[in-house]
Amino acid sequence: MTTQLTLTALPGIPLVEPGDDLPTIILDAYARADLTPADSDVLVVAQKVVSKAENRYAHLGNIEPSAAALELAERSRTDPRLSELILRESREVLRQRPGVIIVEHQLGYVHANAGIDRSNIVSDDDQDPRVLLLPADPDASARRLRDSLRERCAVELAIIINDSAGRAWRNGVIGFAIGCAGIEPLRDMIGQPDMFGRGLERTQIAVADELAAAGSLLMGQASEATPVVLARGVRFRTSEVGSTPLLRARHEDLFR
Amino acid sequence: MTTQLTLTALPGIPLVEPGDDLPTIILDAYARADLTPADSDVLVVAQKVVSKAENRYAHLGNIEPSAAALELAERSRTDPRLSELILRESREVLRQRPGVIIVEHQLGYVHANAGIDRSNIVSDDDQDPRVLLLPADPDASARRLRDSLRERCAVELAIIINDSAGRAWRNGVIGFAIGCAGIEPLRDMIGQPDMFGRGLERTQIAVADELAAAGSLLMGQASEATPVVLARGVRFRTSEVGSTPLLRARHEDLFR
Repeated sequence: MTTQLTLTALPGIPLVEPGDDLPTIILDAYARADLTPADSDVLVVAQKVVSKAENRYAHLGNIEPSAAALELAERSRTDPRLSELILRESREVLRQRPGVIIVEHQLGYVHANAGIDRSNIVSDDDQDPRVLLLPADPDASARRLRDSLRERCAVELAIIINDSAGRAWRNGVIGFAIGCAGIEPLRDMIGQPDMFGRGLERTQIAVADELAAAGSLLMGQASEATPVVLARGVRFRTSEVGSTPLLRARHEDLFR
Repeated sequence: MTTQLTLTALPGIPLVEPGDDLPTIILDAYARADLTPADSDVLVVAQKVVSKAENRYAHLGNIEPSAAALELAERSRTDPRLSELILRESREVLRQRPGVIIVEHQLGYVHANAGIDRSNIVSDDDQDPRVLLLPADPDASARRLRDSLRERCAVELAIIINDSAGRAWRNGVIGFAIGCAGIEPLRDMIGQPDMFGRGLERTQIAVADELAAAGSLLMGQASEATPVVLARGVRFRTSEVGSTPLLRARHEDLFR
């Protein structure tokens, strides 16, 4: 038997506005592709549309930079109001250089500029520039979406909310999972003999991140136009554990 | 139009032995799946089968550990012969702790244990334990494979050789590209407004790494059984640049 995985960018999804009902938007997009939700579907959903539906906009005009934000803005040559927002979204600033601030986000990710999306800042002349924050609780967002689709269609599917981020050591961004529901994000595999020769290492594949990266391939630059990718043929385990197993604990991280 | 990407694990690939002809093996596997090579196919090929075909085995019995290897073995509690091999394959040891040595490989990747595969060490009693090194020049391996398939089938396809590796900050391994041919590994996209508000940032998507991760989803644990994944529907640019653009220069890396 040939193993196959199909990724379909669900078509015709409109610009998402605060308060929009994502489950309805997604069901409409399924219909446009002549598809219906099925058991074991995995939906990879771009963070941007989740944040927009949840109205995670922050208006820079309302932000009063703290002394720390002013200092950070100076060192990183960043808008002080944006620096303030980055600090509010983060546990700690890990690295900075002109134009980029790499933080440990309150949600645990290491992420440039706290994952804040600035593509809504049209220009410096914009009367009310706004930026878009990550969802407050992406695992909860994924769960709500999964629960709603499950209720409306009586199917067991999984949701991954993805974002793109840079990485240590390598150029370019790739998709990664900021939240998930209904899928075990790490899959245990039989590993190599350990270096002591005492047995097999425990190796885990970050399946949710690989799916997030695969989904990102179809979102590409036009993530606004195709922010939802349906993956079919994925073998995954159902789980309620969310995405936190993907986060390496700080004390176990050799590169933080 | 619906955008779709299909990943197919080419079936029935036998255990690869040194000297085996990978192009023939791959064409046979296409036929088994009732497929023929087509323009714009992307083949994601597991590093392991490339290394095996190229006889990149190293026999531990032949390895004489240096003083540096003995010291590294002591500190990382590793087989001194393996430590020696890791040092030979690497430019520098970046981190170490019991059971793991993270290096900058001669080829530029940051990789645990220099990407050396130990799954051929059957046991401590093995008379001639051997390990498998990365291909000497994965981009050249990818080019040879691409050229051979192009010549035999008159198609323009792309090759990505993938391996799995751990990452900073996140748990679990994911697939990444150690070599490629016929594909531009980074895709420029229009980015966000830069933090100075002076225009758009240059953002690049690591398409080859996303494809490597997607292919890895189908290889899973049984990478020996399905080491070649065909991706169809990928929009990519042809390029002869290989995989080196994916490597972040050391002086530009905030985490090395």
